[in-house]
Amino acid sequence: MRREEIDEKFKWDLSKIYPSMEEYNKDFNIVKNEIPKLEEYKGKFLDSVEIFLEFMEIYEKVSRKLSKLSMYSHLAVDVEPGNEEIQTLEANISGLSNEYSNSIVFMELEIGKNEEKAKKILEDERCKKYTNMINSILRYNPHRLSDETEEVINMAGNAMTAYNTYKSIKLEYEPVIIDGKEYFLNDETLREFLKNPDENVRKQAYEKVYKEYKKFSNIFASTLEGAMKEDVFFSKVRKFNSPLEASVFDDEVKPELFNKILKMANETYHKYFLEYLDIMREVLGKENLYSYDLRLPLVKESNSKYTLDDAFELIFKAVENLGEDYRKIIEKARDERWIDYLPHENKRLGAYSSGCYDTNPYILTSFTQDIESVFTLIHELGHSAHSYLSNNNQEYINSDYRIFVAEVASTVNENLLLNLLIHNAKTKEEKQFLLYKKIDEFQGTCYRQPFFAEYENVLHEKAANNEGLSAKTLTDIYDDLSEKYYGGKVKLHEYSKYSCFGIPHFYYNYYVYKYTIGNCVASVIAKRIYNGDKEQIEKYLNFLKSGSSKSPVELLTLAGVNPLEDNLYKEAFEGFKQDLEEFKKVI
Amino acid sequence: MRREEIDEKFKWDLSKIYPSMEEYNKDFNIVKNEIPKLEEYKGKFLDSVEIFLEFMEIYEKVSRKLSKLSMYSHLAVDVEPGNEEIQTLEANISGLSNEYSNSIVFMELEIGKNEEKAKKILEDERCKKYTNMINSILRYNPHRLSDETEEVINMAGNAMTAYNTYKSIKLEYEPVIIDGKEYFLNDETLREFLKNPDENVRKQAYEKVYKEYKKFSNIFASTLEGAMKEDVFFSKVRKFNSPLEASVFDDEVKPELFNKILKMANETYHKYFLEYLDIMREVLGKENLYSYDLRLPLVKESNSKYTLDDAFELIFKAVENLGEDYRKIIEKARDERWIDYLPHENKRLGAYSSGCYDTNPYILTSFTQDIESVFTLIHELGHSAHSYLSNNNQEYINSDYRIFVAEVASTVNENLLLNLLIHNAKTKEEKQFLLYKKIDEFQGTCYRQPFFAEYENVLHEKAANNEGLSAKTLTDIYDDLSEKYYGGKVKLHEYSKYSCFGIPHFYYNYYVYKYTIGNCVASVIAKRIYNGDKEQIEKYLNFLKSGSSKSPVELLTLAGVNPLEDNLYKEAFEGFKQDLEEFKKVI
Repeated sequence: MRREEIDEKFKWDLSKIYPSMEEYNKDFNIVKNEIPKLEEYKGKFLDSVEIFLEFMEIYEKVSRKLSKLSMYSHLAVDVEPGNEEIQTLEANISGLSNEYSNSIVFMELEIGKNEEKAKKILEDERCKKYTNMINSILRYNPHRLSDETEEVINMAGNAMTAYNTYKSIKLEYEPVIIDGKEYFLNDETLREFLKNPDENVRKQAYEKVYKEYKKFSNIFASTLEGAMKEDVFFSKVRKFNSPLEASVFDDEVKPELFNKILKMANETYHKYFLEYLDIMREVLGKENLYSYDLRLPLVKESNSKYTLDDAFELIFKAVENLGEDYRKIIEKARDERWIDYLPHENKRLGAYSSGCYDTNPYILTSFTQDIESVFTLIHELGHSAHSYLSNNNQEYINSDYRIFVAEVASTVNENLLLNLLIHNAKTKEEKQFLLYKKIDEFQGTCYRQPFFAEYENVLHEKAANNEGLSAKTLTDIYDDLSEKYYGGKVKLHEYSKYSCFGIPHFYYNYYVYKYTIGNCVASVIAKRIYNGDKEQIEKYLNFLKSGSSKSPVELLTLAGVNPLEDNLYKEAFEGFKQDLEEFKKVI
Repeated sequence: MRREEIDEKFKWDLSKIYPSMEEYNKDFNIVKNEIPKLEEYKGKFLDSVEIFLEFMEIYEKVSRKLSKLSMYSHLAVDVEPGNEEIQTLEANISGLSNEYSNSIVFMELEIGKNEEKAKKILEDERCKKYTNMINSILRYNPHRLSDETEEVINMAGNAMTAYNTYKSIKLEYEPVIIDGKEYFLNDETLREFLKNPDENVRKQAYEKVYKEYKKFSNIFASTLEGAMKEDVFFSKVRKFNSPLEASVFDDEVKPELFNKILKMANETYHKYFLEYLDIMREVLGKENLYSYDLRLPLVKESNSKYTLDDAFELIFKAVENLGEDYRKIIEKARDERWIDYLPHENKRLGAYSSGCYDTNPYILTSFTQDIESVFTLIHELGHSAHSYLSNNNQEYINSDYRIFVAEVASTVNENLLLNLLIHNAKTKEEKQFLLYKKIDEFQGTCYRQPFFAEYENVLHEKAANNEGLSAKTLTDIYDDLSEKYYGGKVKLHEYSKYSCFGIPHFYYNYYVYKYTIGNCVASVIAKRIYNGDKEQIEKYLNFLKSGSSKSPVELLTLAGVNPLEDNLYKEAFEGFKQDLEEFKKVI
């Protein structure tokens, strides 16, 4: 289908951002003209409260307008990537953004170097809203080096290319052969082949993929070792005690939180994962589980169809306990056309929620009437409602919530819908499918990711000790941890240890543990909301309104779930255990 | 053959280094005990001439003994890599070397920071011999940064891994099929296939290799771009004007010299290379030359056999004009058993000359009685004579000549032998073979390397301008330069541009131009010596005695060939032109 053929009501309305190119150009020129004014404050913007406020006014004006301009072209290009006019907008915006970034480099440096002046400014009532912004810069002071060294570190970062090289490795696999016919194999189709009931097909596809990873293991090892050395470099020069400490510092988190999550998932509640594997083996009726069996679905896929009206009906029902105001946001999203629903030629794949302080939080998706489309929609609506509430309740400077907490709002929504559907399921098959979806997603984020996190932590520690990370070392460690992870319940294929090279997240410097936190938090919150826990609902809505006005851990605590306390994990993992029991009953 | 089965007279005599393990251990313990004494001079070794001399006495003692110990185990392990006792020696020496390096890190830092004190010390007559050592440190001062930054740069270097990743890429090729039979193809056997008279075989092998380079071109591009970014990083942080300037600074050379070489080879005298291609096409009787034709030999290989006695007779004759003293060094090499001649099981492949101030300059080779073995022997004897003369005429601190000039002595010897053999050739085939060898080697170092040098220079410049180096960019540039290099006389295969990814030298930061200088210089010197030019002979022998007592360019000028002057190149390239004419006459 082509975009022109789609009814306007299924497309988002970007004219709410700029009704015409004239309006767009007006803002563009304002930003262009104001950027040089920012630079005039270099060396003096902390001299007095008045000058500071003057500067911040221009800063906010420029920064907000620039975000709005960028958002417009980013959204427009995603549905019309071939449109040359929009491409030109994007290119121009990118140049303008660079100009802007360069013009305010001094801001962070000068705040960092003038701690006393900055703190003095915060004492003025009119500057209170800048507390977070300034403190988040000042807390880096113990890790800030001389200007000369900072420049060198910055330049060094540009010359570190391990991840780039990793991304450039494109493996090709021999085709899978079924009944003499060749089938194309890549990382996408592998997922399908691994669901094939025929063991020979699964094994064949698995081996044809991972033998290539084995073949190129020296290259993969070299880039992964490189990535670890890079993380170690940045943590050491900035005088952190470990790469872990350096990485979580950004999120105002201490290594203890990371370690707690690993302890909970990989030790305290690991037994439930082993139970999941037992159930898997029993349901599949297999004597042994092999590495290539682990993506076999335990239930039949749902083929229910949902119109958009059906979808919204379900969604409204799912979020009912969040109250009228929350419902109204979703109505707004629908009625004010925040959403671009349908897949069409050239449209960007996937789904997202994206917006800024001065635009609606738009949603791009590909609604195809299956149950997954409904889950995707409620997921993205979770993000959009979070953005809407933060933008409407926080000053600009404190509105933009961080990745660390971003997935909570979306996953809570998904869980609310799951809980509703499970409760209302009419057939045994439906209940099986939904419960399986729930436990499968939980084990994917709350067991698999902590296993990955432990692996990347071992690698970082070894690199920090100057231990070499050869292909043998990297795969041996992965093999050992896999044995521990699967608790002897999976017969590991001789190639399975090479699968560590297929996971890009190991290049993201301690990223995956955030998935676990997000999901633990969301499953607990959703369950309480589903059960009508008034206090939880109020706390959660407050959390959604809080943007980035506090640290991530403070925000979660505000939401009623303190990630530093064991209780949260107990509730989340025991919830998984309950779902396992439910599933056992219906299977 | 096993080493035990070989007569002692064909093996080198390492007992001249240490007659027994007792002697070895004695030195080992001396070094071990003296290293801590070095550290006691930290912060004070420049305080007075007396303290400085005291320190240097220990420094030289430790450093010389350590070199001797390392040399012994390095040589011993190369002929007996499986010997566990020697492996243990190597491991222990490596630990001791690290201790030593760490113990004298302060030396360079403190000289750099105390320029005045250091210069004051040099005024004392007893310290004159340290002038070079100290000046070579002081000249880095404008490029030295704060201790903090230097440490960061050092750490950053450890996290830059592009070359490591490049080295880990091991391509596999489909076998070459000739008459239905499969033949193993790798980078070694490719060279043989490219000599095959059957065009189909050459083309097949060429395509099977370079299609793999094409397939992995994104990875290669990423590592090559990474290497360029690394070179740019180091040159920028050290405030050089360009990566070229930074790289040649080590050799006390200015970019002008590099540019001159490129101008001479790629412009002024490029016409002779095109003539060489014309001759090639004519001799091969082909209408067109293709990329896979360029390694086709123009002449039949020689199959003359030479005993060691024959070889030495030829060698003595070849170096006759260098005089009695030079001959005596070669006699010493033979009679005092500096040389390990024969190939055998487990022995290291290849050939080298290696020694230190307190050992003979040993030679490892694989003498197989063909003419190439004789050339290899005289080549390595050239290095050994250079080392012997430098060690016997210079203080320890000024004895170790640099890579930049190292290949002159060996290549002069090869050229002397070539000139002699060409002059004495009895058959037309012999003369063809020898002249071809000469012109082929010249074009390989004096045309091909400057072409590579231009390529790497373009890449460095683009990287310095923050231009991205994608696979397309890298191969397009290589394609354009190849067209220019071959002057339209070779039909470039569509894969030929991917051959840039097979050349490790592009990771060596402006290395290859040194080959060109070495060969230009050597061919000119050898010709003059061959012609009995007394002044040249004396100057050359003085050069061989000079070690590292002057800068490379000064040393070459001392040798009678100033690389900054056009004359040298005129003489070298016109010599090539003459050889071409000679070759045309006999073919």
